[in-house]
Amino acid sequence: MKALIERIRAEGINLGDGILKVDSIINHQLDPALMLGMGAAFAERFADTPVDRILTAEISGIAPALMTAIEMNVPVVYARKKKPITMSGPVFLETAPSHTKGGETLLLVSAEFLHAGENVLIIDDFLATGKTLLALARIVASAGANLVGVGVIVEKTFEGGRAAMLEKYDVPIHALATITSMAGDTISVRE
Amino acid sequence: MKALIERIRAEGINLGDGILKVDSIINHQLDPALMLGMGAAFAERFADTPVDRILTAEISGIAPALMTAIEMNVPVVYARKKKPITMSGPVFLETAPSHTKGGETLLLVSAEFLHAGENVLIIDDFLATGKTLLALARIVASAGANLVGVGVIVEKTFEGGRAAMLEKYDVPIHALATITSMAGDTISVRE
Repeated sequence: MKALIERIRAEGINLGDGILKVDSIINHQLDPALMLGMGAAFAERFADTPVDRILTAEISGIAPALMTAIEMNVPVVYARKKKPITMSGPVFLETAPSHTKGGETLLLVSAEFLHAGENVLIIDDFLATGKTLLALARIVASAGANLVGVGVIVEKTFEGGRAAMLEKYDVPIHALATITSMAGDTISVRE
Repeated sequence: MKALIERIRAEGINLGDGILKVDSIINHQLDPALMLGMGAAFAERFADTPVDRILTAEISGIAPALMTAIEMNVPVVYARKKKPITMSGPVFLETAPSHTKGGETLLLVSAEFLHAGENVLIIDDFLATGKTLLALARIVASAGANLVGVGVIVEKTFEGGRAAMLEKYDVPIHALATITSMAGDTISVRE
């Protein structure tokens, strides 16, 4: 996605250790036109995929998932990382090691909002090691739903997440921007 | 907003102690058509207000804030509740007691994304005691920006948040749905 790649080139900051700062467009500030473009780009890439529901993880997955849901006219459910007081009844629960925060991240999805037989598209901000996305995929499997694809705004190819996903799930994975290297203080990004 | 009020009447659950469960439309699952309608409704209510930026708080504020930002074509910034590894440089920091989670909630906004002189509209999911919204308003003031209005999806009038806000800030406050009572297991909701 050309507009996204230009913004990453202009505004992305390599903080070292494979950490990409894109707070100005994804993780703190959101540009509505760019976000609408992301939703349209995901919908286009999964145009031939039957999708009943989009699953994402709070916090930074919510915006791109919602934009895609608007294009596809399907509901979104966002996995919670802490049990809210309003969450009652059975939940699907998985854990994933947190890449940027350290420790284990909990992912909770109420059984009310994920059903057996549904075709589920996962949308998230980053594909790095793939551990959060794998935890979401396990939640889809636990619900008896079908994972039909994975869409991410940014894939960092050098962290191996795509291979880890494909080893377990034979689904299309689309990234809107692909970072092939963050050697030194550079950011190498392509379609 | 009629469609929202109907959904709250049909799906809202009174969990006691003033806690309203609306996980099926706001806090866990999102309905894209309803969310688009919320964005349009906020934009209409603030049509005569000059807005340069929308400020919200993660997590459940992100979706309505983004929908409003799309209608108004302005950027959104969402206050973080934990410092992400990518947040560097000076931040505006406030705390608010958490209504649904207990304890103190931190609200952090990078000085990069909130500027002196900007007209800032706050959008969030709930107006209850007003403490989170007041903390966001203090961040706007700290930045030297102008608070021009507050929009919430749901106001609970019996928790006094509107009066607490208006005591400090003379700005329009619009709610898309107003809960006037949650006595017993009822939910009294109106425009």
